[in-house]
Amino acid sequence: MEIKELKEQLYALQKKMAAYSHALGLLSYDGETTAPSATVENREVTMAILNEESYKLTTSKKTIELLEELDRRKEELNEQEKRMVYLLLKNQRDMQKVPMDEYIAFQSLLVQSGAVWHEAKEKNDWKIFEPYLEQIFTTIKKFAGYLDPSKDPYDYWLNEFEDGTSRAMLDEFFEKLRSHIVPLLKKIESKPQVDDSMRYGHFDVHKQEELSEYLMELEGLDLSHVGISTTEHPFTTSLGSHLDERITTHYQENDFASSMFSVIHEGGHALYDTGSRKEYAFTVLDGGVSMGIHESQSRFYENIIGRSKEFCEYVFPKLKELFPEHMDKYTANDFYLAMNKAEPSLIRTEADELTYALHIMVRYEIEKKVMAGEMKVSEIPCEWNRLYKEYLGVDVPNDKEGCLQDTHWSGGAIGYFPSYALGSAYGAQFLSKMKESVDVDKCVKEGNFKPINDWNKEHIWQFGCLYKPGELFEKAAGDKFNADYFIKYLEDKYTEIYKL
Amino acid sequence: MEIKELKEQLYALQKKMAAYSHALGLLSYDGETTAPSATVENREVTMAILNEESYKLTTSKKTIELLEELDRRKEELNEQEKRMVYLLLKNQRDMQKVPMDEYIAFQSLLVQSGAVWHEAKEKNDWKIFEPYLEQIFTTIKKFAGYLDPSKDPYDYWLNEFEDGTSRAMLDEFFEKLRSHIVPLLKKIESKPQVDDSMRYGHFDVHKQEELSEYLMELEGLDLSHVGISTTEHPFTTSLGSHLDERITTHYQENDFASSMFSVIHEGGHALYDTGSRKEYAFTVLDGGVSMGIHESQSRFYENIIGRSKEFCEYVFPKLKELFPEHMDKYTANDFYLAMNKAEPSLIRTEADELTYALHIMVRYEIEKKVMAGEMKVSEIPCEWNRLYKEYLGVDVPNDKEGCLQDTHWSGGAIGYFPSYALGSAYGAQFLSKMKESVDVDKCVKEGNFKPINDWNKEHIWQFGCLYKPGELFEKAAGDKFNADYFIKYLEDKYTEIYKL
Repeated sequence: MEIKELKEQLYALQKKMAAYSHALGLLSYDGETTAPSATVENREVTMAILNEESYKLTTSKKTIELLEELDRRKEELNEQEKRMVYLLLKNQRDMQKVPMDEYIAFQSLLVQSGAVWHEAKEKNDWKIFEPYLEQIFTTIKKFAGYLDPSKDPYDYWLNEFEDGTSRAMLDEFFEKLRSHIVPLLKKIESKPQVDDSMRYGHFDVHKQEELSEYLMELEGLDLSHVGISTTEHPFTTSLGSHLDERITTHYQENDFASSMFSVIHEGGHALYDTGSRKEYAFTVLDGGVSMGIHESQSRFYENIIGRSKEFCEYVFPKLKELFPEHMDKYTANDFYLAMNKAEPSLIRTEADELTYALHIMVRYEIEKKVMAGEMKVSEIPCEWNRLYKEYLGVDVPNDKEGCLQDTHWSGGAIGYFPSYALGSAYGAQFLSKMKESVDVDKCVKEGNFKPINDWNKEHIWQFGCLYKPGELFEKAAGDKFNADYFIKYLEDKYTEIYKL
Repeated sequence: MEIKELKEQLYALQKKMAAYSHALGLLSYDGETTAPSATVENREVTMAILNEESYKLTTSKKTIELLEELDRRKEELNEQEKRMVYLLLKNQRDMQKVPMDEYIAFQSLLVQSGAVWHEAKEKNDWKIFEPYLEQIFTTIKKFAGYLDPSKDPYDYWLNEFEDGTSRAMLDEFFEKLRSHIVPLLKKIESKPQVDDSMRYGHFDVHKQEELSEYLMELEGLDLSHVGISTTEHPFTTSLGSHLDERITTHYQENDFASSMFSVIHEGGHALYDTGSRKEYAFTVLDGGVSMGIHESQSRFYENIIGRSKEFCEYVFPKLKELFPEHMDKYTANDFYLAMNKAEPSLIRTEADELTYALHIMVRYEIEKKVMAGEMKVSEIPCEWNRLYKEYLGVDVPNDKEGCLQDTHWSGGAIGYFPSYALGSAYGAQFLSKMKESVDVDKCVKEGNFKPINDWNKEHIWQFGCLYKPGELFEKAAGDKFNADYFIKYLEDKYTEIYKL
C-alpha cells in the first residue's frame, strides 16, 4: 500500500479513538457536573459499551496490521508520525495484555466507585467505599502483572504516570524534600505566625464566579475554548481535543481563596493542554505528556505565580471590587501573607506550598505499602491518621477530612500523587530557566502574562506528547532534573515571609 | 439458532444503539448547555464519527440477518419483541435507503446549522442562516424521495412525526380550528382586556430557579432522574434511556411566567418519557411514541393543568413567597387572568392557548409551500411576516422575533410543528376521558397530582412505543380523535374568562 494511504488511515484511526474518548470523557464530566443523582447505572451501561468498542478498535486485527506496517516503514514517517505510531503501538500492546472482559469490568467498577466515593465522602462513611477501593487495588496490581510481569507493580504504575520514576527514585526525592521542609517548618513555628483571617468571611458564590472568569482571562485562557463548571473535586479535562477544554472548581462561601487557587491551578492544566499545536488535535500527540509535567504547569500558575507578592498585589484591587465590605479591612500584603501561611493542615488541596509535599508523602507511603501487600485497604484510615500525625503533626478528626478527601483512588489513579510533588519541583526549575530570558516578576506585577505563556508555549506546551517527559523536561530546563531548585525556592520564599 | 440466543442478541443490539444515541444526545445537549462557544467544530468531528458507527451498526449484515430471522420467527416473540423487531426493521430499511455519506453529511450540516441559527438569532441576521436552511430543505426533500418515492415529500415527513397525518388531514384540522378560533378571538377583542402586568417586573434568576425546582416536584418529577439546565430554546431529552432525563428552560429577568410555563411544559415531556415501563430502558420501546402524543402531555400540563384556575390558586402562595414585593400587589385571580390573556402576539412559545394554533398554522403553511417548491427559502421572512399579519393581525418587527425564533428547522425538524396543535387537541380529549374517573379539578386544587399522573401512566406513559400513536390514542381516549373536544374546551374556558 502507498505510504500516503497508510498515513491517512493512521490519522483516521486516531480521530476515531479521539471520538470514543470524547464521548466517554463527556459522559464522566456530565456525571460529575450536571447529571441527576440516580443516573449512574444508566451512564454505566453506555460507558461499558463504548469502552468495549474503543477496546475493540485498539486491538482489532486491522489496527494492529496498520500500526505494524507503519512501524516497519518508519523511515518514511516524519518525527511526529513516528511518535504517534510508537504511542499507539504501546497502547495497543498494553491493551492486548489485559483480557477485554477484565478491562471492561474495571471501567464499570470505576464508574461505580466514583459515585460511591462521593457518597462515602458526603456521609463520612469509609466502610461503603472500602470494598470498591479494595477491588481497585487488586485489579491495578493484577493489571500491572499482565502489563509488565518483570516489574514491581507499583513501580510499573509510577512509571506509567511519570516516565522514568520508580520507588527508588521517589524515595530519594521525598527524603531530600523532607530533610529540608521539616527543619524549615520547625523554624517557622518558632516565629510569629501569619494572620490569615482575611480569607474567611462570607463570599457570595456569584461574585466568586465573576472572580473565576476574571482569573481565567488574566491567566490567558481563551474562554471560547475553555469552560468552567463546579464539582466536588476540581479537575481539568479535554473533550475530543484541546479545542474543547473544561475546568471545574468548588466554591466555598466562607473562603474565597479555596476556589480562587483551584481555578488558577486548573487553569494551568488548561493552558498546557490548549497550547498543543493545532495540528495535534485528534491525534495521540494532543495535550499534556505526563502527570508530572502537567502538575508542573498547574502548580507553576497556582503557586509560583499565583502566590507571589506581585500577583497578590495585582489582583487585590479586583478582590476589593468584588468583596468591598470584607476587603476594605485588609491590604494587598495581608492577602499575600495569608496565601502563604505555612501551617500543617488536613486537606491537601488547600495546603500551603511548603507543607504540600508532606501531604503527598502520606499518600505515597500508603500506596507503596498496599501495593506491596504490606498493608490491607481496611487499614488505610488508621495508617493515614498515623502518618498525618507523624509528618504534619495534626490529628485527623474524621475520614471525610482524612483518607476520603481525594477522588484519585476512586478513579483508579494509584501512583498519580507523586506527580504533584514532582510537578512542583519541575516548576521551580523551569522558573529559574525562564528568568534567563523573561522578567517574570515585572510581567506578573503588570498583569502581563503573555511573555510567560509564550515561554511555556515555546518550550513546553506546543509539543504535546511529541517527546518523552524526561526529554521534554531537559529540553525546556536545559539541564537534568534537580530538586535543589525547588528547595532553594522554598527556602528563599519562606525566609523572606517569616523573616527566618 | 435458539430463539433465546436470538432474543439476547436483539436486546444487546438495542443496548448498543442506545449507547450511541446516549453519546450523541449528550454531545448535543452539552453543546446547547455548557460547552464553550468555539467548540462546535470539535464536537462535529466526534459526532460525525459516532453517527457513522451508529449507521454501520444499524445497516450491518449481522444486524439485518438477525432482524430478518426474528421477523420470520415472530410467532416465537412476545408482543413487545414483535414491536421491537418491527421498529428496528423499519429504521434499518429506512437507513439503508439513504446513502451513508449523505446521511453523515446531513448530521454534520445539522450540527453546524444549530450553531449558525444561534448566531443568526442573536444577531438578527437571517442571511447567515438562509443557506443552511436551504440545504436542510433540499436534503429533507431528497431523503423523502429515497425513503418513499411514492409519497409527497411533505406528507412523508408529516407522517413520520405523527403516524397517520398528511396535508389533507391537517388542512381539514387547521381549517376547523381557524373557523372557531378566529371568531372567538374577534369576540374577545370587543370585550374589556385582561391586565397581565403582574407577569412583568424584576424576578431574580436564582429565585426563578427555586420556582423551577418547586414546579418539577409538584408536577411529580423524580429529581434524582430528571435534571434541569438553561438553553436559548427550552427542550427535553432522554440520555441513553428514560432513567436519565433532562429538561431545559430560559430565564427572563423581566417575566417570571416565561420560564415557569416552559418548565411545566418540558416537565410534561419528561413525565411521559420517564413513565415508560422500567424494562423498556435501552430498547426502542423506551420513551414517547410520537411528537403529537408527546406534545399532548407537555401541553396538557402546561395549559390544561398549568393555566387552570385551580392550579393558579394553588401555586400563587409560592409566588408570593419567592417574589413578595412584586406579588403583594396582586391576587391569585390576577395571576390566573394574566396567564390566560388571549392576544395575538409574535412569539409562539409565549402565546396563549387560544392563539397558539395560529402560530403553528403559519409554520405549517410555509413548510407546505417550500416543500412543494412553490416558495423559496429566501422568501420565508417575507411570507412569515405576511402570514402573521393575516392570521394574527400583528406586524413582525424583525426576524429574531419572526422566522428565526424557533430552533426546529435548524435541527432538520420539518413537519414537527403540526404536532403541537395536534397535541393540544389530543390533550383536551384525554382530559374529557380522564374526568370520567378522576376529579381533576379537585386534585389540582389540592396540589395532588398523583391521581392525574397515575391515569396518564396507566393509559399512556407506561406503553412507551409499544403501540402506534393512533392506536395508543384510541385506547387511552376510548374513541377516535375529534378536534371538537379541543374547540369546546377553548370556547368554555374563554367564554368564562372574558364573559363572552
